[in-house]
Amino acid sequence: MYKIDLNSDLGESFGAYKMGNDTAVMDSVTSANIACGFHAGDPLVLNKTIRACIAKNVAMGAHPGYPDLVGFGRRNMNCTPDEEYADCLYQIGAAKAFCEANGVKLQHVKPHGAMYNQAAKNPVLAEAIAQAVKDLHGDIILLGLANSEFEKAAAKVGVPFAAEAFADRAYMPDGNLVPRSQPGAVIHDAALAAARVVRMATEGVVEAIDGTVINFRPHSVCLHGDTPEAVQMAAAVRQALAEAKVDVVCIKEVLGI
Amino acid sequence: MYKIDLNSDLGESFGAYKMGNDTAVMDSVTSANIACGFHAGDPLVLNKTIRACIAKNVAMGAHPGYPDLVGFGRRNMNCTPDEEYADCLYQIGAAKAFCEANGVKLQHVKPHGAMYNQAAKNPVLAEAIAQAVKDLHGDIILLGLANSEFEKAAAKVGVPFAAEAFADRAYMPDGNLVPRSQPGAVIHDAALAAARVVRMATEGVVEAIDGTVINFRPHSVCLHGDTPEAVQMAAAVRQALAEAKVDVVCIKEVLGI
Amino acid sequence: MYKIDLNSDLGESFGAYKMGNDTAVMDSVTSANIACGFHAGDPLVLNKTIRACIAKNVAMGAHPGYPDLVGFGRRNMNCTPDEEYADCLYQIGAAKAFCEANGVKLQHVKPHGAMYNQAAKNPVLAEAIAQAVKDLHGDIILLGLANSEFEKAAAKVGVPFAAEAFADRAYMPDGNLVPRSQPGAVIHDAALAAARVVRMATEGVVEAIDGTVINFRPHSVCLHGDTPEAVQMAAAVRQALAEAKVDVVCIKEVLGI
Amino acid sequence: MYKIDLNSDLGESFGAYKMGNDTAVMDSVTSANIACGFHAGDPLVLNKTIRACIAKNVAMGAHPGYPDLVGFGRRNMNCTPDEEYADCLYQIGAAKAFCEANGVKLQHVKPHGAMYNQAAKNPVLAEAIAQAVKDLHGDIILLGLANSEFEKAAAKVGVPFAAEAFADRAYMPDGNLVPRSQPGAVIHDAALAAARVVRMATEGVVEAIDGTVINFRPHSVCLHGDTPEAVQMAAAVRQALAEAKVDVVCIKEVLGI
Repeated sequence: MYKIDLNSDLGESFGAYKMGNDTAVMDSVTSANIACGFHAGDPLVLNKTIRACIAKNVAMGAHPGYPDLVGFGRRNMNCTPDEEYADCLYQIGAAKAFCEANGVKLQHVKPHGAMYNQAAKNPVLAEAIAQAVKDLHGDIILLGLANSEFEKAAAKVGVPFAAEAFADRAYMPDGNLVPRSQPGAVIHDAALAAARVVRMATEGVVEAIDGTVINFRPHSVCLHGDTPEAVQMAAAVRQALAEAKVDVVCIKEVLGI
Repeated sequence: MYKIDLNSDLGESFGAYKMGNDTAVMDSVTSANIACGFHAGDPLVLNKTIRACIAKNVAMGAHPGYPDLVGFGRRNMNCTPDEEYADCLYQIGAAKAFCEANGVKLQHVKPHGAMYNQAAKNPVLAEAIAQAVKDLHGDIILLGLANSEFEKAAAKVGVPFAAEAFADRAYMPDGNLVPRSQPGAVIHDAALAAARVVRMATEGVVEAIDGTVINFRPHSVCLHGDTPEAVQMAAAVRQALAEAKVDVVCIKEVLGI
Repeated sequence: MYKIDLNSDLGESFGAYKMGNDTAVMDSVTSANIACGFHAGDPLVLNKTIRACIAKNVAMGAHPGYPDLVGFGRRNMNCTPDEEYADCLYQIGAAKAFCEANGVKLQHVKPHGAMYNQAAKNPVLAEAIAQAVKDLHGDIILLGLANSEFEKAAAKVGVPFAAEAFADRAYMPDGNLVPRSQPGAVIHDAALAAARVVRMATEGVVEAIDGTVINFRPHSVCLHGDTPEAVQMAAAVRQALAEAKVDVVCIKEVLGI
Repeated sequence: MYKIDLNSDLGESFGAYKMGNDTAVMDSVTSANIACGFHAGDPLVLNKTIRACIAKNVAMGAHPGYPDLVGFGRRNMNCTPDEEYADCLYQIGAAKAFCEANGVKLQHVKPHGAMYNQAAKNPVLAEAIAQAVKDLHGDIILLGLANSEFEKAAAKVGVPFAAEAFADRAYMPDGNLVPRSQPGAVIHDAALAAARVVRMATEGVVEAIDGTVINFRPHSVCLHGDTPEAVQMAAAVRQALAEAKVDVVCIKEVLGI
């Protein structure tokens, strides 16, 4: 039977500021990337989000980002590998503490925003992140963009890797994402997105933007929860996978570890 | 043979800002309270400080504080117990991650500044901190003011407690610190401070500000490292203890755990 | 003809975090208290809010708060008067710069949250804030709680003062607010709130929680915009004042300066 | 008679963190670039620094930087021109408020660190900064790297411009700075640095790193104050200019405005 994980960025509220429909999207996903306090999230939100994940049977991951709250971690800060390593270790350690205090294990780490985008193409930054994951000694999985430097860094450092796809993004024939600046980069049709994810999970292929059908079998697919439309797409993907008899399970079970 | 620990607040630099003479004071102490990024310290400094402690054979503790960098954690922020618990868990978790990445264990937790002062007299806040220490499941010791709410909270929650004294502070007949606002509250004479610490360690007494000799046997004595005079006093205390044949060892060894 | 100002706290969004229904509430108020970046708001939000105020013909005020973003400025940080003065001067100066850049004048200053609550009862803190307003040399009005230390401080320092009432709060027979912890402290009925504000504006009285009718003529009434109910109450108050032929104008016009 | 200004980055302390020898370097310079709270400085430090400048007869400028305290504003954050404009307006407005409160005028604005380096070569960012200076309506001078985009942006927007040189840096034959990564980029010899500044001021030339003598007449020369050596070099430059009968005056007097 085919298996796939669905993940979403959660716990992004901060103090009096609410963000996202965490409760709604948790019904659709099997893994949560939880903000760790640098680009979003705070200690109280972190604790609350982990407790909600436990209640909803969603596996927990740390979602470290750049120390840029006002920019929501979306600006490239040109960090050095040493800064990136230390910033990740700090944030993952904090998230791990809340997991341990609640009697659960941290499943994975997925970098956020600009940290994700930079490391996906920069082997030195990807390795700094992978090393931080490794040094936490918890059999923690690195979740990163399919066909990127994340996979090579994970292999080099020796941490388990899970390849991520995006339900609402178009792909190039070489397996890379179509840049957001190009027409057709983002898919808004929930049914189309759902059908694409089903095909990734069952046939291991995706239709690229030029019509080419390429091999593409991600371990996890990212869904969003920041708008009602996003929550609806998440639900549509989950339902389509159920109808296609694809087993939607957390990353650990997809990887069989 | 008598045993006592000497501790100091270290790792308080932040980015381009340097604070304290960490290298110098590490020669005199056996335990370090390492800032965790809220009131002082940053991820790079945290990592560097832990590596320096390992090189100098100093046991490591987390030194969580209020989220008030510009106030250096010295202002009472009137946090709720839930905020205090989450802020501590977050910071201790981050510090613990750097210990684990460097192959060592986190020995203790000592709250900083206003967080320390508030919890010392507030049983609910003291318990929130003790609970965070407990929930990290690492046999971590809570280091707090002798004769304060810290000791009761540690007992109630079930974490090991170490009582702290201050080498440069005068005491009331009831064992409490003389408030800084009163004359004679701070001891500036290194030789006198050293002699008082030796007496605490060997006789288990201290002379209170009114001349009364009271029972007082701390597990650890706090030394400062922020001025040349402080570093000198730290060295004087260490030397006096050596001459008095007192075994200066880390908190774990003082408690025998 | 009777005159009164209606004010609301606006510009409280921060980076990717949205807060409040600024556009909707601007239809009901004549003065805006704009967050200045310490407890809420950021430079881009500040600029955007001032431009929206100009478009909607709403007078602009600075809304300085404690440097506590995660606590939304609601925690008493026990600041010294010097800190309070400098924190206010800094934030008001920043807000004033955006006004000047957009060709308008800063009308008033209203402290936020814990800063407001502390200064209302502490003459030294109230004076530190009034002095900051004075030192900006712009005929800026201090807007603060009626019957509080704000009024005395404004008189002492020599800045114009506007007394503020709250549409949704009950009052004690002595003119103070009923603490939120007491039953009946908050008024949820929009029609009742509107009727009370009309009576303040036309008769110069309010019915206290014990039924006593007391003299009470505020220059400005605070409305909220953070929930749909709050926006509805704001509109109800505005409409009731219009029906009662009360002139709803900005603070400057109420004070006649 | 020849005229030149000497400037230094001051007011970079933050809370309990001290940085620089402000008092010492103020004896050598005529203009201060005062940190505004984003990359360094805080409201209390800002006030104290402006008062010290008044006492020492040093003209005051704002020194805005990126919102990156832990990185000291030295990391390129890839800000948009809108962010850069708003961040500058905010910081300059805050600094201007402290000047006005102390009865003095803000003379100039000099961007800090990565903001300076990015804008020096990026016309859109330089123009965003110049526009913020313009919109403060105070005849404020923009101080920026000689032969850079700052000069063009100032001319385009219509603000006075002052060209800056560095006493301790070598120059390329085209008037640009030798990158720090190249040998000989930094001049450590105080006498040599002083002689070079004298030649800039009197002959309007500087010897480039390849020995070419190029035309180069800056309005202001930057000195540092962060180390004892830097303070010594600052004093040496000041003394050499005095001996060469060069009038060391603030930027306003150099520009004759």
